[in-house]
Amino acid sequence: MRDAILNAVSDLRARSPLVHSLTNYVVMEVTANVLLAAGASPLMAHEPEELDDLLAIASALVLNIGTLDKNWIASMEKAGEAANRHGKPVVLDPVGAGASRLRTETSLRLLERVRPKVLRGNASEIMALAPEAAAARGFSKGVDSTNASFEAAPAALFLAKKYGCVVSVSGAEDWITDGRTTLLVKGGTPLMTRVTGMGCSSTALTAACAAVACSPLIAAAAAMAMMAAASNRAAATAGGPGSFLPAFLDALFTLKPAEAAACVHPADE
Amino acid sequence: MRDAILNAVSDLRARSPLVHSLTNYVVMEVTANVLLAAGASPLMAHEPEELDDLLAIASALVLNIGTLDKNWIASMEKAGEAANRHGKPVVLDPVGAGASRLRTETSLRLLERVRPKVLRGNASEIMALAPEAAAARGFSKGVDSTNASFEAAPAALFLAKKYGCVVSVSGAEDWITDGRTTLLVKGGTPLMTRVTGMGCSSTALTAACAAVACSPLIAAAAAMAMMAAASNRAAATAGGPGSFLPAFLDALFTLKPAEAAACVHPADE
Amino acid sequence: MRDAILNAVSDLRARSPLVHSLTNYVVMEVTANVLLAAGASPLMAHEPEELDDLLAIASALVLNIGTLDKNWIASMEKAGEAANRHGKPVVLDPVGAGASRLRTETSLRLLERVRPKVLRGNASEIMALAPEAAAARGFSKGVDSTNASFEAAPAALFLAKKYGCVVSVSGAEDWITDGRTTLLVKGGTPLMTRVTGMGCSSTALTAACAAVACSPLIAAAAAMAMMAAASNRAAATAGGPGSFLPAFLDALFTLKPAEAAACVHPADE
Repeated sequence: MRDAILNAVSDLRARSPLVHSLTNYVVMEVTANVLLAAGASPLMAHEPEELDDLLAIASALVLNIGTLDKNWIASMEKAGEAANRHGKPVVLDPVGAGASRLRTETSLRLLERVRPKVLRGNASEIMALAPEAAAARGFSKGVDSTNASFEAAPAALFLAKKYGCVVSVSGAEDWITDGRTTLLVKGGTPLMTRVTGMGCSSTALTAACAAVACSPLIAAAAAMAMMAAASNRAAATAGGPGSFLPAFLDALFTLKPAEAAACVHPADE
Repeated sequence: MRDAILNAVSDLRARSPLVHSLTNYVVMEVTANVLLAAGASPLMAHEPEELDDLLAIASALVLNIGTLDKNWIASMEKAGEAANRHGKPVVLDPVGAGASRLRTETSLRLLERVRPKVLRGNASEIMALAPEAAAARGFSKGVDSTNASFEAAPAALFLAKKYGCVVSVSGAEDWITDGRTTLLVKGGTPLMTRVTGMGCSSTALTAACAAVACSPLIAAAAAMAMMAAASNRAAATAGGPGSFLPAFLDALFTLKPAEAAACVHPADE
Repeated sequence: MRDAILNAVSDLRARSPLVHSLTNYVVMEVTANVLLAAGASPLMAHEPEELDDLLAIASALVLNIGTLDKNWIASMEKAGEAANRHGKPVVLDPVGAGASRLRTETSLRLLERVRPKVLRGNASEIMALAPEAAAARGFSKGVDSTNASFEAAPAALFLAKKYGCVVSVSGAEDWITDGRTTLLVKGGTPLMTRVTGMGCSSTALTAACAAVACSPLIAAAAAMAMMAAASNRAAATAGGPGSFLPAFLDALFTLKPAEAAACVHPADE
């Protein structure tokens, strides 16, 4: 498994996949910078008329509902269909699922219609999408999670099986499952929760890895591991969230594949 | 009064209010990072269908018209109504009021209909909203103010009384009034005018403080004081606007309440 | 020629032109920060109703199609017309031309209707706009160029003559022509390609220079030279793309006009 992670990180740099994102306004710049620092290329566009052209050349697609509205939801559905038509992997980030009925319903509709390879969210969001499996706790802090990732395990397993996707739950430890095999990613720093877009950037990186990795499970783990390993390095020098972000991007740029692979553990290890 | 400022800054960290912003595209990321560094949580969303759900869980609302259009204006009115319905304080930033008729009229309509607790702008913007009180000078530099904050004092007093709100005028010194009591915030650095979003971030921080402070006047002063105190620290090490921003965020993250309180002065001190 | 570059850079600081941009969401913040660090003032707005008011006070206009949609295209046409009516120079950045039919056609329509003073793009984009002059190579990496700037020379000369504009082709060396005189800008670092918005920021800086320089050719060269000179300085200390950006902004803030002028060379030197 660690060899597969090593290969995913190396191949990301070697092949520089083009990641098309329909994501929220708040994190567009940082997401693009994370992709570029990691060795991928960002592309962002939402006009329905050009989505088929762009998904033909893109390597993967991110759907992130952070600042959704009716027009963007329609564009996301169209982009998802185009990605499927062109055989490009899709990663869904259900930002704020549970905080509004619209977010929960939109996430479920995208899961149903687009069938993403990976669903990546925090514990609160994942639990909100599977009330059958886990009574979702009150959503109290917007896009912040107040639950540990393992608390979402029943919901994650349920969703992985129902939609045939990998579910990647971020938290102090990341909990990643395809419904059969579960991987943990350890590392990172609480400072990540004081910089906007770290979760959304990990979603974009998951899509970049999905374009090159041997499986969606490995892609999801490799992406979270790159985030964790780069954060570990940045936290060693940062004086706060302001200096953390440039240090994090520098670390991502110079990251060795082995640093990432060292953060990934089988759940039963 | 300084005790109230100390409490506001402490309570911001302790209670981590969730600030919902309908703000301009340019400053969304920096605004979110300022809120996070200060100890609050950001939430940004504009789809009318979900605004009531989100204002139910948010602690305060920012309306910032920087990149307004017809759809966003409608969302802002709807968000303002929802905030009022749920008893959450609203802060309005009339970005560029005076630069176009649309901006001036939209700001006045939001003041009239939403009745924000705090109106926060630069001197040119505040003067443009009260031509009865101050012949507004020509708006020559977009969203930059060419007037000192005290020049807007007559307009600020007029607006505070007319709309029953606090008016917070930013400048080299910030001039903050509820129509009876006036506070000054001293500190900060000209470098702040060479980084985009410092004014908009102070608006968001004002909303965060309004969720926890004993009064809108104290909230407005506490927010400007946090900006000033963190800027003072960052200016001591910054080599220009590029290194200023990370240093500012680090300073905000580690700011002591007393550093902020030391920047606030009664107008007649 | 170098005197003209020196004057453009000095005048930019002295006159602080107000640059109105209709640009893409991804780069709005970094573009504003680049303009501010260089000494100009940013303004971003897209609501058709206020464009005439704003172009009356702006000094120059940027049209950047990076995240175009039907509404924004209409706003761009309206803004271009307003800029022409008020005699303000327009700079067009055809982001991703060639990647979708919509981008290519929108760029050509804006060239035809708005008649920008400067067209600034990378080699792939410029070649995609003049298939008559250069069989455009496959567009494989979204908004990244895979061609050296000089490869776009035939297309650039063709477009410069056809539309009576300056064409500024960015690359490891920048290749800038008005159809008669060609200037090269040498300098910069590959790290610029690992930070989002460097190309878009050079477009905004071109507009700022166009408001003060003696000709569009000098404006285009001065802007690219400021980017190159500031990048040279930042690259000397940066540990990666994360630390590059703050260092770049600091360098731009303290840049001496002679540092920029030293990067500009006649094509036949």
